[in-house]
Amino acid sequence: MEKFNASIAYDQRMWDEDIRGSKAYVMALQKAGLVTQEEMEQIHGGLDKVFVEWSSGKFHIKPGDEDVHTANERRLKELIGEAAGKLHTGRSRNDQVVTDMRLWLRNGIDTLKGNAIELINTMVERAAVEIEILFPGYTHMQRAQPIRWSHWILSHAVALSRDVEQVEEIRRRVNVLPLGSGAIAGNPFNIDRELLRKELDFDGISINSMDFSNWISTQNALCFIHIKMAEDLILYSTKEFSFISLSDAYSTGSSLMPQKKNADSLELIRSKAGRVFGRCAGFLMTLKGLPSTYNKDLQEDKEAMFDVYDTVHAVLQVATGVISTLKVNQKHMEAALSPDMLATDLAYYLVRKGVPFREAHSCSGKAVYQAESKNVPLNQLTVKDLHSASPLFDSDVSSVWDYTSSVEQYSAPGGTARSSVTAQIEHMRAWLKAHRE
Amino acid sequence: MEKFNASIAYDQRMWDEDIRGSKAYVMALQKAGLVTQEEMEQIHGGLDKVFVEWSSGKFHIKPGDEDVHTANERRLKELIGEAAGKLHTGRSRNDQVVTDMRLWLRNGIDTLKGNAIELINTMVERAAVEIEILFPGYTHMQRAQPIRWSHWILSHAVALSRDVEQVEEIRRRVNVLPLGSGAIAGNPFNIDRELLRKELDFDGISINSMDFSNWISTQNALCFIHIKMAEDLILYSTKEFSFISLSDAYSTGSSLMPQKKNADSLELIRSKAGRVFGRCAGFLMTLKGLPSTYNKDLQEDKEAMFDVYDTVHAVLQVATGVISTLKVNQKHMEAALSPDMLATDLAYYLVRKGVPFREAHSCSGKAVYQAESKNVPLNQLTVKDLHSASPLFDSDVSSVWDYTSSVEQYSAPGGTARSSVTAQIEHMRAWLKAHRE
Amino acid sequence: MEKFNASIAYDQRMWDEDIRGSKAYVMALQKAGLVTQEEMEQIHGGLDKVFVEWSSGKFHIKPGDEDVHTANERRLKELIGEAAGKLHTGRSRNDQVVTDMRLWLRNGIDTLKGNAIELINTMVERAAVEIEILFPGYTHMQRAQPIRWSHWILSHAVALSRDVEQVEEIRRRVNVLPLGSGAIAGNPFNIDRELLRKELDFDGISINSMDFSNWISTQNALCFIHIKMAEDLILYSTKEFSFISLSDAYSTGSSLMPQKKNADSLELIRSKAGRVFGRCAGFLMTLKGLPSTYNKDLQEDKEAMFDVYDTVHAVLQVATGVISTLKVNQKHMEAALSPDMLATDLAYYLVRKGVPFREAHSCSGKAVYQAESKNVPLNQLTVKDLHSASPLFDSDVSSVWDYTSSVEQYSAPGGTARSSVTAQIEHMRAWLKAHRE
Amino acid sequence: MEKFNASIAYDQRMWDEDIRGSKAYVMALQKAGLVTQEEMEQIHGGLDKVFVEWSSGKFHIKPGDEDVHTANERRLKELIGEAAGKLHTGRSRNDQVVTDMRLWLRNGIDTLKGNAIELINTMVERAAVEIEILFPGYTHMQRAQPIRWSHWILSHAVALSRDVEQVEEIRRRVNVLPLGSGAIAGNPFNIDRELLRKELDFDGISINSMDFSNWISTQNALCFIHIKMAEDLILYSTKEFSFISLSDAYSTGSSLMPQKKNADSLELIRSKAGRVFGRCAGFLMTLKGLPSTYNKDLQEDKEAMFDVYDTVHAVLQVATGVISTLKVNQKHMEAALSPDMLATDLAYYLVRKGVPFREAHSCSGKAVYQAESKNVPLNQLTVKDLHSASPLFDSDVSSVWDYTSSVEQYSAPGGTARSSVTAQIEHMRAWLKAHRE
Repeated sequence: MEKFNASIAYDQRMWDEDIRGSKAYVMALQKAGLVTQEEMEQIHGGLDKVFVEWSSGKFHIKPGDEDVHTANERRLKELIGEAAGKLHTGRSRNDQVVTDMRLWLRNGIDTLKGNAIELINTMVERAAVEIEILFPGYTHMQRAQPIRWSHWILSHAVALSRDVEQVEEIRRRVNVLPLGSGAIAGNPFNIDRELLRKELDFDGISINSMDFSNWISTQNALCFIHIKMAEDLILYSTKEFSFISLSDAYSTGSSLMPQKKNADSLELIRSKAGRVFGRCAGFLMTLKGLPSTYNKDLQEDKEAMFDVYDTVHAVLQVATGVISTLKVNQKHMEAALSPDMLATDLAYYLVRKGVPFREAHSCSGKAVYQAESKNVPLNQLTVKDLHSASPLFDSDVSSVWDYTSSVEQYSAPGGTARSSVTAQIEHMRAWLKAHRE
Repeated sequence: MEKFNASIAYDQRMWDEDIRGSKAYVMALQKAGLVTQEEMEQIHGGLDKVFVEWSSGKFHIKPGDEDVHTANERRLKELIGEAAGKLHTGRSRNDQVVTDMRLWLRNGIDTLKGNAIELINTMVERAAVEIEILFPGYTHMQRAQPIRWSHWILSHAVALSRDVEQVEEIRRRVNVLPLGSGAIAGNPFNIDRELLRKELDFDGISINSMDFSNWISTQNALCFIHIKMAEDLILYSTKEFSFISLSDAYSTGSSLMPQKKNADSLELIRSKAGRVFGRCAGFLMTLKGLPSTYNKDLQEDKEAMFDVYDTVHAVLQVATGVISTLKVNQKHMEAALSPDMLATDLAYYLVRKGVPFREAHSCSGKAVYQAESKNVPLNQLTVKDLHSASPLFDSDVSSVWDYTSSVEQYSAPGGTARSSVTAQIEHMRAWLKAHRE
Repeated sequence: MEKFNASIAYDQRMWDEDIRGSKAYVMALQKAGLVTQEEMEQIHGGLDKVFVEWSSGKFHIKPGDEDVHTANERRLKELIGEAAGKLHTGRSRNDQVVTDMRLWLRNGIDTLKGNAIELINTMVERAAVEIEILFPGYTHMQRAQPIRWSHWILSHAVALSRDVEQVEEIRRRVNVLPLGSGAIAGNPFNIDRELLRKELDFDGISINSMDFSNWISTQNALCFIHIKMAEDLILYSTKEFSFISLSDAYSTGSSLMPQKKNADSLELIRSKAGRVFGRCAGFLMTLKGLPSTYNKDLQEDKEAMFDVYDTVHAVLQVATGVISTLKVNQKHMEAALSPDMLATDLAYYLVRKGVPFREAHSCSGKAVYQAESKNVPLNQLTVKDLHSASPLFDSDVSSVWDYTSSVEQYSAPGGTARSSVTAQIEHMRAWLKAHRE
Repeated sequence: MEKFNASIAYDQRMWDEDIRGSKAYVMALQKAGLVTQEEMEQIHGGLDKVFVEWSSGKFHIKPGDEDVHTANERRLKELIGEAAGKLHTGRSRNDQVVTDMRLWLRNGIDTLKGNAIELINTMVERAAVEIEILFPGYTHMQRAQPIRWSHWILSHAVALSRDVEQVEEIRRRVNVLPLGSGAIAGNPFNIDRELLRKELDFDGISINSMDFSNWISTQNALCFIHIKMAEDLILYSTKEFSFISLSDAYSTGSSLMPQKKNADSLELIRSKAGRVFGRCAGFLMTLKGLPSTYNKDLQEDKEAMFDVYDTVHAVLQVATGVISTLKVNQKHMEAALSPDMLATDLAYYLVRKGVPFREAHSCSGKAVYQAESKNVPLNQLTVKDLHSASPLFDSDVSSVWDYTSSVEQYSAPGGTARSSVTAQIEHMRAWLKAHRE
């Protein structure tokens, strides 16, 4: 049961935050007249020694230390004696745990944001360099229209930038001081919570001392960053697509088949979506149906937070490595473009001659069917052939069969034309500058 | 298979948004020179008729109408003929669906926000009226400390206010125009997306035409509002607690047991947390591992969105009804306060005489044990009895045994003292004013 | 609130089961002396009329009918008068609901099992017919080894057969009679539960009248059938793989791109995994933390059950249609086999000459590298070339480069050799025979 | 990336299973003529040494050991030289991993089953001893009818017995040998899989070498055992209910409030439902959308399996401890019975006089209302009072007001009468005997 109850195995990770929180709290106690100036200095000195022990790997956890908070106070007492017993005045363990977690999480969010920004930057700069490469855009995994490879990269960079913005919003919710809430009723010694806020660099103070849910919703903070491009890249790295090759550092062989080169890095990234979802879903279920305020069930929050952080941290770094080292097989990409992908453009040819799109779509469909029946590529149909689909087709239809021209049509904002992709790159560079602070 | 494929059964709910999106799009087509002024007016006139048919319940869905978009265009063609075929020029169904969904969701979010604000307002005003009522605060479902009933109400009102803020953030992400993205490559007719944005009142324009995930993450928009107080209120309405009585409109009897009065309304609210979670988790799983851009899998998004909206909409309204009509049994609440809940205050008595809290906590614990052994309430221990716990106890200890005084100690911001609770009420009133716009 | 509370909109689907349960119950009441023979016949006659009304679409739901149980009893009373009021003697609504659900679910399970068996049968017979077709087996989505197409089909048929077995186990747990449990304490009239069991054709009787969880775990009954092959088939139907073509009935075009043929049927099947998971996960969360016995929260079970049933029912039927109509492109499958997929066999060549596998794997790996460096297929390396990888390579190495011989090596049970695949087919045919009953 | 890829940190837990699997496999290799008798003995000897190193804590993991399988083979090679390289002939790592996992899981299931049986046994024997204790049965958390405390215990014991049966079914699916599947195509050396099966004590052999999903569904094996009684017991241990007291070993105090005694053990049990669900849901999401056969994503399975096992293992043991040491407060239980809980019996009094139940229910309801209006307990209404509800009430109505008589009515199988509860106890004792093997 003791083992079932204890959390020191994982919550020791917050030793630094616990010490910082206590140092601030004792200042508030001193201001409230509950400890003297000397006692405060004594406690600060003791906590500094505890800090040194942890950071030099010399802190010894003892059998009775059920969590990092009792461990630190136990050690403080060994170092400075009875004065240590004043540190917890008016403070509850919940108070303390939540404060520690928010300090830790705030820092974790900053790290992950930095990782995400580095990944986005890698993507945007790669998009800038490889803007001339065309390849098939897919919908339903079927070849749809020619697009720029950079356009694909940027679609994922933009998605990630939204994740970063969401994480910034969450940081704002996390960065609110709970300390001074006591167990439930508040703090009875009129502690100066504004002093605590300033000392611990929070943006605000929690409004209601029972509102611990405050910290709960922050647990899902880290679940949001997602790397969707892994699935596409796994497919692009198959023999059948052959669009990209991963560097050796990010792929592995087989214990049985000598010729294999597997995209393990991308498969692991893909798999972690499940892991992170599971942690968040599991904790949401733990929360479900709980009465308000603290219940021991909430102890589950810490392992979930650490695991999600570690997972997302690794995923972002590996993704940056994959993207910056993968080799693009431009030849294969371009070979995968086929005239039938211009069937929409063939319809637009008619639209430009005044045919309503629905009818033009139907005429182009007839041409596609004709080419399939004759077993020739769509661009090998003669003007005469095309006439059976629509009499409006003329010799200038040959201008349709150029992939670059096709791509260049899509110049409206967001499109795959060179100008439009360049504008996206500029937009993202500006965004990166703004969000790096 | 046709039935498996069709979505008209549920997406017809967006008929209005579909018409609005098409009316705007045809304006952009006219500006781009793809339809004439007359054609535009013809299409607008036709769409207005379609609008009237839907709003008067006279629109007839026909066998071939697989979704609301094809139904509307089919009807338009019946009404105005071939010109209808120009409406879809340069637009893909995805383009159109996502635009419709965002228009619908933006409106849905506004409704839910309004519902939540009404609920919060009901709670805050009830807290203001019943500020004098004390009752036990619980942690771990065990009586912890006396608190104000208003303090409990406000703890949930504050949590809801965070939900509203989160929904506002999501609205900002939703309120970005996707129209003009085409299927994947963008729009080839240099459509004026800024015109579309203004017409449809969006805040911005999507940056990349492949970034449909844009709309995906918005699906989780509505999952955030949660009503945690249901669990507490169910317990408070049991015979054992008897703190509150639900009005008859919000409780039901039993088909077998004539004396039963069940808190069905609260149980349904509690149960819906699972339903909403399931919808969000299910759609997340549908998304997992998909290649980018549109895949038919995404059709699952609409039913999830509607069901989550309907559920949260009902929950918020029923919660408002429950809160505004429940009867507080002040007598039972106060009878549930017991002297052992002042054990922390007994420790604080010693703290105020200079005893370190850890030691004071231990002395108070001894007194609690003594009272239990003697089978008397804690406040019936004599000063002499208390001396065996600590010699510092004196006759002024009697001042500890007053629940109102106890509560009044907690005057630090966020606490349960009258002044502090009043400040919370003022804070929430100001918040409500600000968020009602 | 009334709307929030009512379930008639969906639970009317159990009208037949409700009538059958009531008919059996009244027989038990008669045996217990609580209704007379005449009253029983009167009630039976009335219920038969209610049955006719429902089955002919003439049953009218009235405003007060909150669920199908009250609707049926209300109608019975209109038809036969006061005697109807005896029907509910000693029975609670929970009793009744759970009995109805089990009757419904038992039938639903049988239907789904039939659907699954039809699908498995389609797969097994297709495997029998197309046993000669070879194509690449993949791991990590990379070409691994040549296998028979039938081997792939059977791997999914075998997985489905396990699902069927699991569903049969669940049916056993479902097929236990709850009727006679009352609300919680049991039945006070010593009702003959064995009579009820026989009448309603249950296998056993529930052991404890509070153990309603009995029915709860059955909700997940239907979540188990999964169609994993959709993902593979979607990839196989891409232009890049071109292994299969879906029939037109199971694919759709694009509103924008005339050349598109999308595997919508398979994408919908894939998406439904999320839907079904979400329903099960959502209901599990609803269950989490509930006190025992009936709570209104459990009303969520019915919509989940119906939706999961409908979804799995449609998925199994569409999957059977897809499998029975898809066209295999044998030419493309065989063209996708490449000599490097025989690198494991090249290692086995050395193993057969006494080289430890780890070393043989390494030699073969060297040969693969050499071929890549020379930019020739692996089977174009000369014996002399191969000598630099291992001196044991000789002219008989040419026998390695035959895909059929390669496949035929795998003759251990479960392997891809003709004999082994035939044995699998026979195994599955016997299994089908046994499970069709 | 290496760290991201490696699994040795957790899969070393299967060192024993890995050695056992390899020892069996080398026997099959010898029979197939791929290793000599001497080589087999050499490998067995080496593996035995590796076994000793692990079991004495002296096995050293080296930097290159990415998983326990490579670690063991690396060490074997150090001990016996090149012959170690023959061990992997015809075997893939997947083959090996899945075999190891099944050996491990089979054993884990047996342990958990033993834990569950011990818990059930504790419950059943407690039910036997305390059969005379009555207390309120609740539905909707409202007092419903008097029941035996043993009836409540047994309702949870019966639910657990179903979990055990489900785990037994899962064991049957787990206990199927995958070894001999190779990477995908099967085993090319006609290995004797029947020999492997016997050596490793499996019940059967997997049918298809690609059907790795076989092992996947087993991951959810352990998710099924659930402890629902925690929620009830937490409520029963509140001051308001005061039905039970946890022993000190299973409850904890507060760092702030000296009087607190929290049911931490039960809260932790309750919370673990979320953890286990999260692990299962997370792994299901990892599986979703994967192509068939092995993908690196599946590496997530092991941590999930170990964590779920450890969690359920601890939960079952703590639950047994809680149940065997909790103290029942019979006095409080009986004081919580109130006459209104006999309102159903009051209706049955009329039913026995021939009144249809629906009418009797309504008469009893009137009496309840009358008592509430008069503010007297239901059993204090005079016969004259009762006449206004129904003229059939007579002086013999006094017999209704006896809780023991009430309970004794429920003598149908599954009910709360002494005879019925005794029959349940006997049923469960027989079940325990049968399932202990």
